[in-house]
Amino acid sequence: MKMLTFNELAHRLPPRKAISHKGDYGRLLLIGGNRNMGGAIMLAAQAAVCSGAGLTTVATDEVNHTALHCRLPEAMVLNWENNDLLISKIKGADVILIGCGLGLETISVRLLQTVLINIADHQKLILDGDAITLFARNPQSPTALKTLATPHQKEWERLSGLTPLQQTEISNQTAVKRLGIDVVLKKHGTELYLAGSEPQRINVGTPAMATGGMGDTLAGMLAGFLAQFPRHYRQAVCGAVYLHSHIAQGLAESRHVVLPTDIISRIQTEMKEMIAPEE
Amino acid sequence: MKMLTFNELAHRLPPRKAISHKGDYGRLLLIGGNRNMGGAIMLAAQAAVCSGAGLTTVATDEVNHTALHCRLPEAMVLNWENNDLLISKIKGADVILIGCGLGLETISVRLLQTVLINIADHQKLILDGDAITLFARNPQSPTALKTLATPHQKEWERLSGLTPLQQTEISNQTAVKRLGIDVVLKKHGTELYLAGSEPQRINVGTPAMATGGMGDTLAGMLAGFLAQFPRHYRQAVCGAVYLHSHIAQGLAESRHVVLPTDIISRIQTEMKEMIAPEE
Amino acid sequence: MKMLTFNELAHRLPPRKAISHKGDYGRLLLIGGNRNMGGAIMLAAQAAVCSGAGLTTVATDEVNHTALHCRLPEAMVLNWENNDLLISKIKGADVILIGCGLGLETISVRLLQTVLINIADHQKLILDGDAITLFARNPQSPTALKTLATPHQKEWERLSGLTPLQQTEISNQTAVKRLGIDVVLKKHGTELYLAGSEPQRINVGTPAMATGGMGDTLAGMLAGFLAQFPRHYRQAVCGAVYLHSHIAQGLAESRHVVLPTDIISRIQTEMKEMIAPEE
Amino acid sequence: MKMLTFNELAHRLPPRKAISHKGDYGRLLLIGGNRNMGGAIMLAAQAAVCSGAGLTTVATDEVNHTALHCRLPEAMVLNWENNDLLISKIKGADVILIGCGLGLETISVRLLQTVLINIADHQKLILDGDAITLFARNPQSPTALKTLATPHQKEWERLSGLTPLQQTEISNQTAVKRLGIDVVLKKHGTELYLAGSEPQRINVGTPAMATGGMGDTLAGMLAGFLAQFPRHYRQAVCGAVYLHSHIAQGLAESRHVVLPTDIISRIQTEMKEMIAPEE
Repeated sequence: MKMLTFNELAHRLPPRKAISHKGDYGRLLLIGGNRNMGGAIMLAAQAAVCSGAGLTTVATDEVNHTALHCRLPEAMVLNWENNDLLISKIKGADVILIGCGLGLETISVRLLQTVLINIADHQKLILDGDAITLFARNPQSPTALKTLATPHQKEWERLSGLTPLQQTEISNQTAVKRLGIDVVLKKHGTELYLAGSEPQRINVGTPAMATGGMGDTLAGMLAGFLAQFPRHYRQAVCGAVYLHSHIAQGLAESRHVVLPTDIISRIQTEMKEMIAPEE
Repeated sequence: MKMLTFNELAHRLPPRKAISHKGDYGRLLLIGGNRNMGGAIMLAAQAAVCSGAGLTTVATDEVNHTALHCRLPEAMVLNWENNDLLISKIKGADVILIGCGLGLETISVRLLQTVLINIADHQKLILDGDAITLFARNPQSPTALKTLATPHQKEWERLSGLTPLQQTEISNQTAVKRLGIDVVLKKHGTELYLAGSEPQRINVGTPAMATGGMGDTLAGMLAGFLAQFPRHYRQAVCGAVYLHSHIAQGLAESRHVVLPTDIISRIQTEMKEMIAPEE
Repeated sequence: MKMLTFNELAHRLPPRKAISHKGDYGRLLLIGGNRNMGGAIMLAAQAAVCSGAGLTTVATDEVNHTALHCRLPEAMVLNWENNDLLISKIKGADVILIGCGLGLETISVRLLQTVLINIADHQKLILDGDAITLFARNPQSPTALKTLATPHQKEWERLSGLTPLQQTEISNQTAVKRLGIDVVLKKHGTELYLAGSEPQRINVGTPAMATGGMGDTLAGMLAGFLAQFPRHYRQAVCGAVYLHSHIAQGLAESRHVVLPTDIISRIQTEMKEMIAPEE
Repeated sequence: MKMLTFNELAHRLPPRKAISHKGDYGRLLLIGGNRNMGGAIMLAAQAAVCSGAGLTTVATDEVNHTALHCRLPEAMVLNWENNDLLISKIKGADVILIGCGLGLETISVRLLQTVLINIADHQKLILDGDAITLFARNPQSPTALKTLATPHQKEWERLSGLTPLQQTEISNQTAVKRLGIDVVLKKHGTELYLAGSEPQRINVGTPAMATGGMGDTLAGMLAGFLAQFPRHYRQAVCGAVYLHSHIAQGLAESRHVVLPTDIISRIQTEMKEMIAPEE
């Protein structure tokens, strides 16, 4: 499988235009965080904001409201039981990420359905964590909607029907085409299956990343990149996946374990190095 | 239009007097932060406190109480539904900022009305964000009250009736005079229309600033500067606007995106460099 | 008036004994923080913990519980309406600080009374902020209880009956003796009136300290020093007062305004330099 | 008694395997934090996560939910009154730590019982703080369950019946065997009594550590080490105990008092130095 390298990525994503405003960098809606896993959506939101998303709104269980604001005053927040406001936010978003700490409860199912019913083809959807498990129970037929899923191997098994041993490049490609979605398959040497491109994998990363919340952080970065680089979809996905592991690998030189919040604290500066100077 | 430069600003704002106390640096009241946009008023409050306001009180939705204190124990806090306490705080303030995350709900309208009814001519008023939109629906006739509005171009359209294309220097000046308020028009090359001065614009800033909460941070800095430099109104407004973008431009040298909290963390040291040494 | 200098203070407070445990550094109870001024008691508690108090408990309005823990997991917390638990904590404390953000409400009065009724002569009491105003309305006759008040000039006027202009060294000494308490009179050149010592004042400090919460921080440092150095009362009071302004003065070299939280972040390292090496 | 040295410890704990995921580093359940001592379980959880535990869940009083997430979004959280969810988490955990800020109330007793009833022999249990006091009132007969207690001298007295003066190496060894548990006896020169090994003590540490929350931090580190190194039990216990004091001793060179949060901030980098490079 083709390897994704830094040199290939660097300078492929466009720098910000001198005359631009926050609306140019995307409206992002993140949905997740039940009563037990609120931290997941907080990490995703921080990663998205630090990646440069223009305007970020988080729909979550009320119980997570204060901790989110405390960590990230830059985001707006929404009680996910407020259905009218949620639908209006779904309709106004450029990118929607659902799944981090979502849970598998009745409300979780309803939230995913609300997204799938109200989202339109010009928007982009990222399915992470529990949203993948829920989607796998009742996968929608492919539409023109750009959908990216970020499963780990077990979640990919639920979605594709392939056991980890069956998850070969060829089988994965076939499953991805059948499902009509793009996939970032998280594992040692994360693999990218994006429609219209050859599969690729990354050769950066570190076992120091093996800790809770790491996937939520990647999902948030992907959301931030997609919101911000709407015309560079493939480069945005590759860039976010690469940078996430690249930052972790650098930090692991001096840390036994690298935490999600450690990675988040480096996104702004590492992105600067990755992206070419302002036009 | 005349350009505002650092050299012109530096050393124009007076250093603190050796013998002084917190009362000398102003009593500030910030009103904003509904159930969805509480972060906005937290950012404004942090910016005001870091700019050197003497005593800062935040009136906000109860839901924001804990996150505000968690981020900023230096501020006092007030449930904005406590009308009696709010009125007493309005009457005791030197500077009032209303609008950051205020919303456009019934309570938002009532809060703005409460301010406009209870504020006196010796006080200063800053209208930001939603307060501008609400004010535009029902603009008051000019009074001796010093009022500063900080619209972006769309908000300025609501207030002035001028579309972005019509927002020329001459038209803006006419509108500002008619409205009887001063205006900081936020855009690439922010413009200042202050009564009795030639319009000016800044040539610092960076597209890395184009992210949610940036305007709230500027509003908070303006509030902090006005509270603290009551006899240097024009220099205080210019200083806050310039410094906000100047800090961002510096940080953007090593960051893809500059967050409001990044700017806030540099206000204290950058102000030190901008202001002449103690008398 | 005699000037307090660093050289005189340095190495007068004893280093920690090699074989010791947290109980040796005092049990501290801090009471303050109503619904509007919770930050005050948080700052005091952080200052006390960073000064080295052994065990710190904060009795405050329930609304401040979460923000306190979020900022300072090292402290225990107590709903101040839980009278039985409060009394048991009062009886078990070595040092009690009351007043930071206490307010002047019915509950504030009751809390001060509860302290005055239940405290014993072997304990130490610090009265700050609103507790001074309340105490001034109904001053107790002198007892063997060691009491330290930390008024600014207006609070001292309420307590002593002396207007700021009347607050001369002689008059202050007379008032202090009559009241039977020790006084740290906060002003430019803070003055110390401690029973059995000549009055002293400090010549460190900076107008950059003139901001909300600064007095609460000093009160917390005093509490931390008194809890920890029970046999060095005078040196502990002098040390805390001096260090508070000394840290601020150092930070003001590069900051326009010095915030309470800035000072707190330097207490641990600056105390290390001030205190002689371990025995 | 044999002294535990850094050289003996270094490189004994295995580095992470290149191909591994968070499940390989353990599922950890921490139970503690009542309405007054919530900070204790937050510190333990932060220490566990920073030590590299794979997945960390905290069961605590509802009141601590927000502050925990605010400090540590990497952890999951659980209302400890939700008995069904608690039991399922107990059954799924590799290591359970109970006691930090647990209290001695009815609910505390019930929680400990719930753990003791539902835990299985292949799991590991750490008893800290109040859980030791509760366990001492009604000690269970030894089972195959690996149990580690971390008492200070007074708690050890409750558990062993030995007064501090009676706590000699021989008597402690006898008591440990009778109780069927391993013991980390916290004191100046902390002692380790682990089944099948000679007693050992550490000669690192500093009186700057004598402050509230320090024991909770050690308990969290032990939990993180045990979760992560399931086949190196003895080295994991020794490593955590040594590193905790080793970090404190280093920080005390420039700090009068070392706080739990200071130690936590250094765990990741200090573990890196202690553990041999990746295979």
